[in-house]
Amino acid sequence: MKAKCIAAVMLAVIIFATTVIAGDDPLPSWAQGPTKMAIIEFVQDVTKQGGPDYVQPQERIATFDNDGTLWVEYPMYTQFLFAFDRVKELAPQHPEWKTKQPFKAVLEGDMKTVGTSGMKGLMEILMETHSGMTAAEFEKEVTDWLATNEQSRFKRLYTECVYQPQLELLTYLRANGFKTFICSGGGIQFMRAFTEKAYGIAPQQVIGSSIVSEFKIKDGKPVLVRMPKIDFVNDKAGKPVGIYEHIGRRPILAFGNSDSDMQMIEYTLAGEGRRLGLFVHHTDADREYAYDRKSHVGTLGKALDLADAKGWIIVDMKKDWRTVFAFEKNDN
Amino acid sequence: MKAKCIAAVMLAVIIFATTVIAGDDPLPSWAQGPTKMAIIEFVQDVTKQGGPDYVQPQERIATFDNDGTLWVEYPMYTQFLFAFDRVKELAPQHPEWKTKQPFKAVLEGDMKTVGTSGMKGLMEILMETHSGMTAAEFEKEVTDWLATNEQSRFKRLYTECVYQPQLELLTYLRANGFKTFICSGGGIQFMRAFTEKAYGIAPQQVIGSSIVSEFKIKDGKPVLVRMPKIDFVNDKAGKPVGIYEHIGRRPILAFGNSDSDMQMIEYTLAGEGRRLGLFVHHTDADREYAYDRKSHVGTLGKALDLADAKGWIIVDMKKDWRTVFAFEKNDN
Repeated sequence: MKAKCIAAVMLAVIIFATTVIAGDDPLPSWAQGPTKMAIIEFVQDVTKQGGPDYVQPQERIATFDNDGTLWVEYPMYTQFLFAFDRVKELAPQHPEWKTKQPFKAVLEGDMKTVGTSGMKGLMEILMETHSGMTAAEFEKEVTDWLATNEQSRFKRLYTECVYQPQLELLTYLRANGFKTFICSGGGIQFMRAFTEKAYGIAPQQVIGSSIVSEFKIKDGKPVLVRMPKIDFVNDKAGKPVGIYEHIGRRPILAFGNSDSDMQMIEYTLAGEGRRLGLFVHHTDADREYAYDRKSHVGTLGKALDLADAKGWIIVDMKKDWRTVFAFEKNDN
Repeated sequence: MKAKCIAAVMLAVIIFATTVIAGDDPLPSWAQGPTKMAIIEFVQDVTKQGGPDYVQPQERIATFDNDGTLWVEYPMYTQFLFAFDRVKELAPQHPEWKTKQPFKAVLEGDMKTVGTSGMKGLMEILMETHSGMTAAEFEKEVTDWLATNEQSRFKRLYTECVYQPQLELLTYLRANGFKTFICSGGGIQFMRAFTEKAYGIAPQQVIGSSIVSEFKIKDGKPVLVRMPKIDFVNDKAGKPVGIYEHIGRRPILAFGNSDSDMQMIEYTLAGEGRRLGLFVHHTDADREYAYDRKSHVGTLGKALDLADAKGWIIVDMKKDWRTVFAFEKNDN
């Protein structure tokens, strides 16, 4: 190859790298302002070879909560709605549910009573509806449900009710050598049914709550059977534990939206070197929802009070996100 | 760019791809023969776009056992030797160990009595020596120990007693779009201290047994503290469960060396499409060790009996591996 040609090859590589890594605006759905600037500066600093904040690619771990951080969680966590539908579907095999709470309330559509059954009641519903089948059967249940049910306000599949700015951020981080993980209180196998298509996050990069599974031979075939027993709750103080078990490395960026994400973000920021911790604040009743301190889902109060002192960034959905959903543009 | 130049760029890309993917001989330490051929044909078949056995890159998951599959496990699992040294180190803080089995036996170097304490005794030793410190402190303990202790026969660091043919295989698989995972009965955090350097396997791609960890604030800093309580035993029927929890996807290749790997390999081969399951058979007393049915570590018997019927490949270390360790060459 002649020198000119070698130069052309190198140029092509550089152009490609520049396009992927910097782009014109890697985060077009994020409004110009201090939040967007903080994210871009952080990424530029930790990827600048020879710079004081440089972080090796293998250490570039980012963890995202799911409900309310990557997709809509209001007025009710999607997985609970799936579980309620499963209760109705399984009811013929469970005549006792007609008189047993909180199943009775679910069957009667009495969400207030379901709510008063608290975490214990909800866990019981999750366990009963998420167990007793093989891993493959459960995945199919979730996939089929998500393919046919719509979010109540937007009349779109739940997997379309994902936040466009966050999709851009995930892509931007990956283009800069980050590994992007989900770290959610939601069920690990529930999420794995859609995260790769919805967010480009492979199953092995999803961390969540789990029930116990057992290896069995069924009809001569080795299968994994889901048991009605809690294995791990990946919420609050469970999130750093989940990260330790699944990643074995402290993230340098963590993104949540509720007080349940505080421990994940504290743990992330406690490491050495540059770190970034962010919370989505749902402030946009017009385009999505507005809720925080008194909400029954994604409660955000303590984190708002502590943010300044802790150096946490509060992302104001209304101000910081130019677009919330990709489908907005089509609807205009 | 002119057409000639575009052609040159494309040629450069093709040459690069060919070198990485095919190479002259991607497995130089594997002897020519049916085993090596089966591996290469498998990789070629699942990566051949448009071919009947093509597998999408994201589904190219390979899981490897560690002890006896990637590094030496004879005459004793490395992690147990680490634990025995920890017992001696911690003994001054545990005067009760002078009379309490199996700790007494460890302190007296009476390995026979340690052995008769069985899995229960060994688990007790592991829990006592692997807990009570933070995640970071434990990682440092392991790293320091591995940097200063040598394998008894080869007088080399344990991390040098890794099998050269397997390093080549891991590299070959990754060059062909595979994600390589460890799935071992060993401690997940013990392994993570060395797998990235030794095998190029990042911590998040290591699956193993675990004890419970808790998130705590210690001296004002958020830390993870290791507790003396078993969380999960990633062995035998636990291996497919560990794979389900950590990867959420069925491997298409699994490699073990003992009867404890049978469930992992059965689970792997039970999926649809092309699959490969292999066992290292330690047949080389000259270059490494020869042991199988009656061994106290890495017992291999049932798998040998079932291999033909199940389509498992038994890798004969003596015949199939031209080189066992990288350091052999230097020693000649």
